[in-house]
Amino acid sequence: MGKYDAMWEKLNIDLPAHEGLMEVLGKFYGDIYLSQQGRLQGMEYLDLVLSEIHGLRVKELQEAKQLQGRKVIGTFCVFVPEELTIAANAIQIGLCSGADAGKEQVEKLIPRNTCALIKSFMGFKLARLCPFTESCDLIVGETTCDGKKKAYETFGKIAPMYVMEVPQRKSEQDRALWKAEILRYKETLEKLTGNTITAQSLKKAIVIVNNKRKAIQRLNKLRVADPVPISGRDALLINQVGFYDDPERFTNQVNLLCDQLEEKIARGEGVAPQGTPRLLMSGCPMAVPNWKLPYVTESSGAVIVGEESCVGTRNIRDLVDESGQTLDEMIDALTDRYLKIDCACFTPNSERVDNILNLAKETRADGVLQYTLLFCQPYAQENFRVEKSLQDAEIPSMVIETDYGMEDVEQLKTRIEAFVEMVK
Amino acid sequence: MGKYDAMWEKLNIDLPAHEGLMEVLGKFYGDIYLSQQGRLQGMEYLDLVLSEIHGLRVKELQEAKQLQGRKVIGTFCVFVPEELTIAANAIQIGLCSGADAGKEQVEKLIPRNTCALIKSFMGFKLARLCPFTESCDLIVGETTCDGKKKAYETFGKIAPMYVMEVPQRKSEQDRALWKAEILRYKETLEKLTGNTITAQSLKKAIVIVNNKRKAIQRLNKLRVADPVPISGRDALLINQVGFYDDPERFTNQVNLLCDQLEEKIARGEGVAPQGTPRLLMSGCPMAVPNWKLPYVTESSGAVIVGEESCVGTRNIRDLVDESGQTLDEMIDALTDRYLKIDCACFTPNSERVDNILNLAKETRADGVLQYTLLFCQPYAQENFRVEKSLQDAEIPSMVIETDYGMEDVEQLKTRIEAFVEMVK
Repeated sequence: MGKYDAMWEKLNIDLPAHEGLMEVLGKFYGDIYLSQQGRLQGMEYLDLVLSEIHGLRVKELQEAKQLQGRKVIGTFCVFVPEELTIAANAIQIGLCSGADAGKEQVEKLIPRNTCALIKSFMGFKLARLCPFTESCDLIVGETTCDGKKKAYETFGKIAPMYVMEVPQRKSEQDRALWKAEILRYKETLEKLTGNTITAQSLKKAIVIVNNKRKAIQRLNKLRVADPVPISGRDALLINQVGFYDDPERFTNQVNLLCDQLEEKIARGEGVAPQGTPRLLMSGCPMAVPNWKLPYVTESSGAVIVGEESCVGTRNIRDLVDESGQTLDEMIDALTDRYLKIDCACFTPNSERVDNILNLAKETRADGVLQYTLLFCQPYAQENFRVEKSLQDAEIPSMVIETDYGMEDVEQLKTRIEAFVEMVK
Repeated sequence: MGKYDAMWEKLNIDLPAHEGLMEVLGKFYGDIYLSQQGRLQGMEYLDLVLSEIHGLRVKELQEAKQLQGRKVIGTFCVFVPEELTIAANAIQIGLCSGADAGKEQVEKLIPRNTCALIKSFMGFKLARLCPFTESCDLIVGETTCDGKKKAYETFGKIAPMYVMEVPQRKSEQDRALWKAEILRYKETLEKLTGNTITAQSLKKAIVIVNNKRKAIQRLNKLRVADPVPISGRDALLINQVGFYDDPERFTNQVNLLCDQLEEKIARGEGVAPQGTPRLLMSGCPMAVPNWKLPYVTESSGAVIVGEESCVGTRNIRDLVDESGQTLDEMIDALTDRYLKIDCACFTPNSERVDNILNLAKETRADGVLQYTLLFCQPYAQENFRVEKSLQDAEIPSMVIETDYGMEDVEQLKTRIEAFVEMVK
């Protein structure tokens, strides 16, 4: 028996199927990550987190629940304010949704023409494969897209679901609605945890989450160097781990990594030779273990220098104003910060195009790969406008529409190699 | 030269392509409508409207614009309050979107995985085939689904677009947002037309639109009779014409038709023998000339007795409270009435399931056909829950997913014939 089997069994995990998943994931991680040349020492932290993905961290969560009576909140989206969760002394974790699972069962409940990410979170639950999902006292969804919005209705029948309404424009009235939703979430958390969120606890939480964002911002700035000191795969992994590790530990580890990266840059070392074509990845989120496209890209003679994505800059670009003193001032600061998110769910969402252009410039990208999950209508539509703006700015770009299957890897490689040749 | 060619040319219509469209439409209409046995006299009104679809009514609109300085407002959705449009002395028309057009051009601007209805309104504009679209001073969209919401951003570059935000839940805060959107539309109309909407003009408009709804409600009640006095095709056509004909003329004509239907019922006459399997159509809207499924269904031994659809009961079920005296009371009444719409864009939207069950009972339906446009995520997701509720209520149902193409007609016929056999 494995060392976590008893815990997993208690969480109603399908042990044989889960063992199979862990084996595949381990091999996948080995091929994509451990095979990299000259990785940093600090990456061992990430390797440990990943190799223990369903073990150590879940054990921590279980202990926090059992020994400290803390609650665990699962999320699928960067709109759920972690500051409130932390201020209520609860733990927020992103539920990955980056691999196919339980597809057959899923397609009995939602349409086949649904994006892989949605099918994944449904599937992990239905197939009893995710100890994180099973650890959640509450799972918070949001009305960001039709697919998720309607799938949460179904998911709510098998999981403790709560849905925040994200408005679709950014007018004064939308802000009022969003503020009301933030307050409703605050009350929900207080009721769930029995803890009152105070100005003091929220102020502290705002700093904790801002520090997490600042650490990734620092990391991203270091990627401007040529040669680039860290692979896009590793940077993505850091962004991914940020969704489920303890935020303060995560921040410390990322800052330690950044210290090493600075030394590496000073020595003129990189993960790829100077002058290697630099690509910006833009579009849909890549959740653990959705490393397909970064791996294919970095095996095609390019290096990824930025992620314009929810698992990337969309999650960390904007800080919450820390000057608020009263609870209401802080709630206002949260409201404003989260409404800055340039998700394709907004109409219009022209700031996203500006942000991509700025990011391409900042990261000194030679080209942009627009990554879209098949059946994701909001990003698929924005692709056309982003493409046009990139063309106008004379930045090469290519749209990649795919899912979590491996059938198209060779085809993607051929396309990306041609693209890399072109931007050289 | 045809009698409307000069007008169409002035509206920048592609005349040769338009002539081809009218020919196909005429033949299609002949096959589906004029071939029906024992049609009512009153249907001649509809035949005239349809045979003159791009002629007479467009001429009226042009005259209203040129001689009376009235403005024309195009819409794609039942959320746009026609009461306000009429109160501002403007004319509201639904822009059909029920046939494929300009597909090649459309797919250069929006994803192929977009529903046929969205591609249609883009295509009719791009291919310069719709004199209604070209007659519009303003086209009002709404944020009901991802596909439309994002397509309007693109459409706004080639048409005078305005977008109303429809909220996604029905809480107090959502009502506040929706009321603000109604007021914003009111101000937009006043600015566009130069007319101030008064309590008097709005009160009159509320009665006009309610009367239109009441006429269709009356018609639907008469369809409860067995034998059923009117085909589903004709009833759908009436619902469709209601979106672009003059509302008062339309109401009079429908009421005249109802008088005849009552006589027909008294004589025990119907469009199909007593005991013919009765089906309720449920789901996505069927815009002119999207008559494919009703035609296939009524050629398969069944008769359609109701349309749970935006081009059907969703548009006419709820009246606006007429008791308001002040402008603000009336705006509140409009807010409440439109927020009753059970569109799949809301979460949850459980009232829709109840409405379908009630309608199936009221119409004495033997079964339900759940009609879904390919790539329409909101209705495709709700299908699963509707299906479950119908099963629980022991009402047979079948999901039909299709688009505007004719390739699947034979396959649909086979499936529907088998379904009709089953519900007999």
